[in-house]
Amino acid sequence: MRISIIGGGVVAEDVRETAVSTGRVVAQRGHTVVCGGLGGVMEAACEGAKDAGGDTIGILPTDRRADANEYVDVAIATGMGHSRNALVVMNGDAVVAVDGGGGTLSEVGFASVYDRPIAGLGTHDVPEIRACETPEEAVRYVESSIGEGRTAPP
Amino acid sequence: MRISIIGGGVVAEDVRETAVSTGRVVAQRGHTVVCGGLGGVMEAACEGAKDAGGDTIGILPTDRRADANEYVDVAIATGMGHSRNALVVMNGDAVVAVDGGGGTLSEVGFASVYDRPIAGLGTHDVPEIRACETPEEAVRYVESSIGEGRTAPP
Amino acid sequence: MRISIIGGGVVAEDVRETAVSTGRVVAQRGHTVVCGGLGGVMEAACEGAKDAGGDTIGILPTDRRADANEYVDVAIATGMGHSRNALVVMNGDAVVAVDGGGGTLSEVGFASVYDRPIAGLGTHDVPEIRACETPEEAVRYVESSIGEGRTAPP
Amino acid sequence: MRISIIGGGVVAEDVRETAVSTGRVVAQRGHTVVCGGLGGVMEAACEGAKDAGGDTIGILPTDRRADANEYVDVAIATGMGHSRNALVVMNGDAVVAVDGGGGTLSEVGFASVYDRPIAGLGTHDVPEIRACETPEEAVRYVESSIGEGRTAPP
Repeated sequence: MRISIIGGGVVAEDVRETAVSTGRVVAQRGHTVVCGGLGGVMEAACEGAKDAGGDTIGILPTDRRADANEYVDVAIATGMGHSRNALVVMNGDAVVAVDGGGGTLSEVGFASVYDRPIAGLGTHDVPEIRACETPEEAVRYVESSIGEGRTAPP
Repeated sequence: MRISIIGGGVVAEDVRETAVSTGRVVAQRGHTVVCGGLGGVMEAACEGAKDAGGDTIGILPTDRRADANEYVDVAIATGMGHSRNALVVMNGDAVVAVDGGGGTLSEVGFASVYDRPIAGLGTHDVPEIRACETPEEAVRYVESSIGEGRTAPP
Repeated sequence: MRISIIGGGVVAEDVRETAVSTGRVVAQRGHTVVCGGLGGVMEAACEGAKDAGGDTIGILPTDRRADANEYVDVAIATGMGHSRNALVVMNGDAVVAVDGGGGTLSEVGFASVYDRPIAGLGTHDVPEIRACETPEEAVRYVESSIGEGRTAPP
Repeated sequence: MRISIIGGGVVAEDVRETAVSTGRVVAQRGHTVVCGGLGGVMEAACEGAKDAGGDTIGILPTDRRADANEYVDVAIATGMGHSRNALVVMNGDAVVAVDGGGGTLSEVGFASVYDRPIAGLGTHDVPEIRACETPEEAVRYVESSIGEGRTAPP
């Protein structure tokens, strides 16, 4: 399935490492990473996924595919600015949030709107998110949420 | 100025009354209500504003202006679905959230992205929102946030 | 009803005068001008409408209401870039095109998609557009198209 | 490079065959097909590309990836309705139009906005489009337009 990894565009080194690990775990378990295509958590998640031989999709706020980070396989330009946050969530079957600010919070809201299960690693403390300790736990949580009869989003 | 009033599309009677009051206070203090144009908090806020002789703008998820509630003065169709949530926030100078679920949470995130002050009445418990007890308190909070040198959004 | 006036953002003086006249006629006949909110034909059409005491709506590509020209009454920011062209058409009941390039052509296409009648003044030579000689003729054409039982768009 | 193939969602058999051939030629020459992800020309172009071992991207108007035709490799849901037409063009380096109505015309306009070369096969008769006789001619035309120093879009 596809897992959207969301989080800030500029992050500290420890957050970056968590995002790399998350992307790696997602890819190792056979899933595709969907993200916002830019830097920070987005780039780190893609780097981790490519390191594990996985696939990555980056849905950009700008109208230029060239703005995608170097680890994005399929760059999709939107020219929609922050409104593209809805598309980042809509195009995954589940979501893992790593750190993040307002943009990430908007995506947490969209995860609820589109009924995507969402796990969090050091991110917003809201009931919509299942707080997890490790990337492995986060990915297994969303896998099991989809697996437990929750209809995989179309 | 313009104040975006956000909240759920289907709400209980007490929430509806809070939204009507919020719309009324916003209009009484000379501001225009911006909302998502549909039912629930959106309709109640517009009803309150019109009751007080104010102006209302409804930014719809559908591509049909006719979907706006009857208290919307200027209906804007977008055909963008939930992505229009960004526009609801972007088109206000400040935000008041009344109750609400995932869609509202996405708008709270966008308020942070676009640097709009946001007051809450019985809504999500997140640091981005200043929790208030009454519509008056909520409107005065966002007025003072803009007034205190916070640059009014363009 | 609402009439979308579309055309280029940078125009020659004679085109500007045609757009001013078109906005004036639209307003004199009791309609609201909808446009893309920026300069050129958009600004001229709004200027003409305000000169005749009419109302104007500007749907902007940027996320800043302040980018609207000075004759826009209700500025709607979208942050969607050129994708907002669909909204300019969607929010009118009919369309008048004055001159214009690629962006205008995209709007001509959307007029067809959304089944809006469209009159043209010195614009693209395509079957979708009824070519007219004067603003009066253009406005009367779209009025009669709506009036002749063509369902007014919602 | 990526070539956007645009055209109607419901088409006659001869148009369908032209679209299949166009997709096949695009893939044989090493390019990826970008399209609107639905039926008609979109599906036929993807079928042709897959038949030749190529890659396909479908950018959908709905918010459901499941709405993509069976020949789409990477489905991108947008939930934006017809506004997604801008994204179909934006995500290609060049465009080939096959038949088509209003939606296609909007994309022809966007090709001009985003400075993408565009070839046509039995489509709108406008100066923006280089009319071609065969899929081979159309693909070679856009290849040469990009190759002749026209900066490949980012």
